[in-house]
Amino acid sequence: MPNIEQIIETYVLGWNSSTNNQRMDLMEKVLAQNCVYFDSHLPEPTEGRDLHCQFIDRFRDKFSDLSLELTSTPDAHHGYFRFTWKMLKGDGNIFVQGTFFGDLDPQDKITKLVGFVDKND
Amino acid sequence: MPNIEQIIETYVLGWNSSTNNQRMDLMEKVLAQNCVYFDSHLPEPTEGRDLHCQFIDRFRDKFSDLSLELTSTPDAHHGYFRFTWKMLKGDGNIFVQGTFFGDLDPQDKITKLVGFVDKND
Repeated sequence: MPNIEQIIETYVLGWNSSTNNQRMDLMEKVLAQNCVYFDSHLPEPTEGRDLHCQFIDRFRDKFSDLSLELTSTPDAHHGYFRFTWKMLKGDGNIFVQGTFFGDLDPQDKITKLVGFVDKND
Repeated sequence: MPNIEQIIETYVLGWNSSTNNQRMDLMEKVLAQNCVYFDSHLPEPTEGRDLHCQFIDRFRDKFSDLSLELTSTPDAHHGYFRFTWKMLKGDGNIFVQGTFFGDLDPQDKITKLVGFVDKND
Protein backbone atom coordinates (compact mmCIF):
# COMPACT_ATOMS: atom_id res chain seq x y z
CA MET A 1 0.00 0.00 0.00
CA PRO A 2 1.60 3.29 -1.03
CA ASN A 3 1.76 6.05 1.54
CA ILE A 4 0.60 9.57 0.85
CA GLU A 5 4.13 10.79 0.10
CA GLN A 6 4.59 8.14 -2.61
CA ILE A 7 1.16 8.88 -4.06
CA ILE A 8 1.80 12.60 -4.32
CA GLU A 9 5.36 12.16 -5.61
CA THR A 10 3.95 9.97 -8.39
CA TYR A 11 1.34 12.62 -9.17
CA VAL A 12 4.09 15.25 -9.43
CA LEU A 13 6.19 12.96 -11.65
CA GLY A 14 3.12 12.51 -13.85
CA TRP A 15 2.58 16.26 -13.98
CA ASN A 16 6.21 16.79 -15.02
CA SER A 17 6.28 13.99 -17.61
CA SER A 18 7.40 15.17 -21.02
CA THR A 19 5.01 12.92 -22.94
CA ASN A 20 1.27 12.49 -22.58
CA ASN A 21 1.59 8.68 -22.57
CA GLN A 22 4.09 8.69 -19.75
CA ARG A 23 1.87 11.12 -17.85
CA MET A 24 -1.16 8.86 -18.27
CA ASP A 25 0.82 5.78 -17.17
CA LEU A 26 1.80 7.49 -13.92
CA MET A 27 -1.58 9.10 -13.32
CA GLU A 28 -3.29 5.71 -13.67
CA LYS A 29 -1.35 4.62 -10.59
CA VAL A 30 -2.61 7.42 -8.36
CA LEU A 31 -5.79 9.02 -9.77
CA ALA A 32 -9.13 7.20 -9.61
CA GLN A 33 -10.81 7.04 -13.00
CA ASN A 34 -13.63 9.26 -11.75
CA CYS A 35 -11.45 11.77 -9.89
CA VAL A 36 -12.67 15.35 -9.97
CA TYR A 37 -10.51 18.46 -9.92
CA PHE A 38 -11.65 21.91 -8.80
CA ASP A 39 -9.44 24.71 -10.05
CA SER A 40 -9.99 28.16 -8.58
CA HIS A 41 -9.64 29.70 -12.07
CA LEU A 42 -12.12 27.42 -13.87
CA PRO A 43 -15.88 27.68 -13.50
CA GLU A 44 -16.50 23.97 -14.05
CA PRO A 45 -14.74 21.04 -12.37
CA THR A 46 -12.54 18.77 -14.49
CA GLU A 47 -14.25 15.39 -14.33
CA GLY A 48 -12.29 12.15 -14.61
CA ARG A 49 -8.66 11.06 -14.91
CA ASP A 50 -8.58 11.36 -18.72
CA LEU A 51 -9.72 14.99 -18.70
CA HIS A 52 -7.38 15.73 -15.81
CA CYS A 53 -4.44 14.48 -17.88
CA GLN A 54 -5.65 16.39 -20.95
CA PHE A 55 -5.89 19.53 -18.82
CA ILE A 56 -2.22 19.13 -17.83
CA ASP A 57 -1.27 18.27 -21.45
CA ARG A 58 -2.79 21.51 -22.69
CA PHE A 59 -1.25 23.50 -19.87
CA ARG A 60 2.21 22.11 -20.60
CA ASP A 61 1.81 22.56 -24.36
CA LYS A 62 1.18 26.23 -23.64
CA PHE A 63 3.89 26.69 -20.98
CA SER A 64 6.40 23.99 -21.89
CA ASP A 65 9.18 25.05 -19.52
CA LEU A 66 7.11 24.78 -16.32
CA SER A 67 7.72 22.13 -13.72
CA LEU A 68 5.91 21.26 -10.51
CA GLU A 69 7.73 20.83 -7.22
CA LEU A 70 6.49 19.95 -3.74
CA THR A 71 7.06 22.56 -1.02
CA SER A 72 5.69 20.48 1.86
CA THR A 73 5.72 16.85 2.89
CA PRO A 74 2.24 15.61 2.00
CA ASP A 75 0.21 14.48 4.99
CA ALA A 76 -3.09 12.70 5.33
CA HIS A 77 -5.62 11.39 7.83
CA HIS A 78 -9.08 9.82 7.49
CA GLY A 79 -8.68 9.70 3.69
CA TYR A 80 -7.99 13.45 3.35
CA PHE A 81 -4.64 14.84 2.30
CA ARG A 82 -2.94 18.14 1.60
CA PHE A 83 0.32 19.41 0.19
CA THR A 84 1.80 22.68 -1.02
CA TRP A 85 3.60 23.14 -4.30
CA LYS A 86 5.32 25.65 -6.52
CA MET A 87 5.34 25.78 -10.28
CA LEU A 88 8.73 26.82 -11.56
CA LYS A 89 9.62 28.51 -14.83
CA GLY A 90 12.63 27.34 -16.81
CA ASP A 91 14.74 30.04 -15.19
CA GLY A 92 13.93 28.71 -11.72
CA ASN A 93 11.63 31.57 -10.76
CA ILE A 94 8.22 30.81 -9.31
CA PHE A 95 5.35 31.04 -11.80
CA VAL A 96 2.64 30.28 -9.26
CA GLN A 97 2.40 28.44 -5.95
CA GLY A 98 -0.45 26.86 -4.10
CA THR A 99 -2.04 24.24 -1.92
CA PHE A 100 -3.87 21.09 -2.92
CA PHE A 101 -6.38 19.45 -0.68
CA GLY A 102 -7.98 16.15 -1.63
CA ASP A 103 -9.69 12.86 -0.92
CA LEU A 104 -8.50 9.27 -1.26
CA ASP A 105 -10.72 6.26 -1.89
CA PRO A 106 -10.31 2.97 0.06
CA GLN A 107 -7.80 1.83 -2.60
CA ASP A 108 -5.70 4.95 -1.92
CA LYS A 109 -6.51 6.48 -5.30
CA ILE A 110 -7.15 10.21 -5.45
CA THR A 111 -10.84 10.90 -6.02
CA LYS A 112 -10.86 14.65 -5.49
CA LEU A 113 -8.35 17.50 -5.79
CA VAL A 114 -9.17 21.08 -4.79
CA GLY A 115 -6.54 23.65 -5.70
CA PHE A 116 -5.94 26.96 -3.94
CA VAL A 117 -3.44 29.56 -5.14
CA ASP A 118 -1.11 30.93 -2.48
CA LYS A 119 0.28 34.41 -2.64
CA ASN A 120 3.99 34.82 -3.18
CA ASP A 121 5.91 35.72 -0.06
CA MET B 1 -25.69 35.69 1.89
CA PRO B 2 -22.59 35.68 4.10
CA ASN B 3 -19.18 35.45 2.48
CA ILE B 4 -16.58 32.94 3.57
CA GLU B 5 -14.76 35.49 5.71
CA GLN B 6 -17.92 36.24 7.69
CA ILE B 7 -18.69 32.53 8.05
CA ILE B 8 -15.25 31.69 9.39
CA GLU B 9 -15.09 34.74 11.65
CA THR B 10 -18.39 33.62 13.18
CA TYR B 11 -16.98 30.11 13.64
CA VAL B 12 -13.94 31.56 15.43
CA LEU B 13 -16.17 33.76 17.61
CA GLY B 14 -18.16 30.64 18.48
CA TRP B 15 -14.98 28.77 19.30
CA ASN B 16 -13.85 31.58 21.62
CA SER B 17 -17.22 32.06 23.34
CA SER B 18 -17.00 31.84 27.09
CA THR B 19 -20.34 30.05 27.52
CA ASN B 20 -21.63 26.94 25.84
CA ASN B 21 -24.96 28.61 25.03
CA GLN B 22 -23.31 31.54 23.31
CA ARG B 23 -21.11 29.10 21.38
CA MET B 24 -24.13 27.10 20.22
CA ASP B 25 -25.99 30.27 19.16
CA LEU B 26 -23.07 31.30 16.93
CA MET B 27 -22.37 27.81 15.62
CA GLU B 28 -26.01 27.44 14.56
CA LYS B 29 -25.42 30.32 12.16
CA VAL B 30 -22.50 28.66 10.36
CA LEU B 31 -22.43 24.90 10.95
CA ALA B 32 -24.93 22.60 9.24
CA GLN B 33 -26.69 20.34 11.73
CA ASN B 34 -25.05 17.28 10.17
CA CYS B 35 -21.57 18.75 9.80
CA VAL B 36 -18.72 16.33 10.31
CA TYR B 37 -15.30 17.15 11.74
CA PHE B 38 -12.15 15.12 11.13
CA ASP B 39 -9.42 15.79 13.69
CA SER B 40 -5.97 14.37 12.99
CA HIS B 41 -5.67 13.30 16.64
CA LEU B 42 -9.01 11.49 16.92
CA PRO B 43 -9.71 8.09 15.37
CA GLU B 44 -13.41 8.78 14.78
CA PRO B 45 -14.97 11.83 13.15
CA THR B 46 -17.11 14.14 15.28
CA GLU B 47 -20.58 13.87 13.76
CA GLY B 48 -23.04 16.73 13.94
CA ARG B 49 -23.12 20.32 15.16
CA ASP B 50 -24.09 19.39 18.73
CA LEU B 51 -21.14 17.04 19.18
CA HIS B 52 -18.86 19.57 17.50
CA CYS B 53 -19.86 22.18 20.09
CA GLN B 54 -19.50 19.67 22.92
CA PHE B 55 -16.02 18.80 21.63
CA ILE B 56 -15.05 22.48 21.88
CA ASP B 57 -16.77 22.79 25.29
CA ARG B 58 -14.67 19.94 26.68
CA PHE B 59 -11.51 21.29 25.08
CA ARG B 60 -12.05 24.72 26.60
CA ASP B 61 -13.03 23.31 29.99
CA LYS B 62 -9.64 21.58 30.01
CA PHE B 63 -7.59 24.49 28.60
CA SER B 64 -9.62 27.49 29.64
CA ASP B 65 -7.10 30.18 28.68
CA LEU B 66 -6.84 29.18 25.01
CA SER B 67 -8.20 31.31 22.21
CA LEU B 68 -8.40 30.75 18.48
CA GLU B 69 -7.17 33.34 15.99
CA LEU B 70 -7.13 33.36 12.20
CA THR B 71 -3.72 33.58 10.52
CA SER B 72 -5.00 33.76 6.94
CA THR B 73 -7.91 35.37 5.15
CA PRO B 74 -10.30 32.47 4.49
CA ASP B 75 -10.85 31.75 0.80
CA ALA B 76 -13.26 29.52 -1.04
CA HIS B 77 -14.31 28.34 -4.47
CA HIS B 78 -16.80 25.74 -5.70
CA GLY B 79 -18.07 25.25 -2.14
CA TYR B 80 -14.62 24.39 -0.73
CA PHE B 81 -12.79 26.62 1.71
CA ARG B 82 -9.59 26.79 3.71
CA PHE B 83 -8.02 28.92 6.40
CA THR B 84 -5.08 28.78 8.78
CA TRP B 85 -5.27 29.45 12.49
CA LYS B 86 -3.28 29.57 15.68
CA MET B 87 -4.41 28.65 19.15
CA LEU B 88 -2.96 31.02 21.71
CA LYS B 89 -2.29 30.41 25.36
CA GLY B 90 -3.16 33.08 27.93
CA ASP B 91 0.41 34.39 27.79
CA GLY B 92 0.14 34.96 24.03
CA ASN B 93 2.40 32.07 23.05
CA ILE B 94 1.24 29.62 20.41
CA PHE B 95 -0.16 26.37 21.78
CA VAL B 96 -0.77 24.81 18.36
CA GLN B 97 -1.38 26.05 14.84
CA GLY B 98 -2.94 24.49 11.81
CA THR B 99 -5.03 24.55 8.67
CA PHE B 100 -8.70 23.78 8.20
CA PHE B 101 -10.20 22.69 4.91
CA GLY B 102 -13.90 22.25 4.48
CA ASP B 103 -17.08 22.08 2.47
CA LEU B 104 -20.10 24.39 2.33
CA ASP B 105 -23.63 23.34 1.44
CA PRO B 106 -25.81 25.38 -0.96
CA GLN B 107 -27.04 27.42 2.04
CA ASP B 108 -23.40 28.33 2.86
CA LYS B 109 -23.41 26.23 6.03
CA ILE B 110 -20.27 24.26 6.83
CA THR B 111 -20.87 20.54 6.27
CA LYS B 112 -17.31 19.29 6.69
CA LEU B 113 -14.16 20.42 8.48
CA VAL B 114 -10.83 18.61 8.15
CA GLY B 115 -8.08 19.81 10.47
CA PHE B 116 -4.34 19.54 9.92
CA VAL B 117 -1.71 20.57 12.45
CA ASP B 118 1.06 22.80 11.10
CA LYS B 119 4.53 22.73 12.53
CA ASN B 120 5.75 25.82 14.34
CA ASP B 121 8.16 27.93 12.34
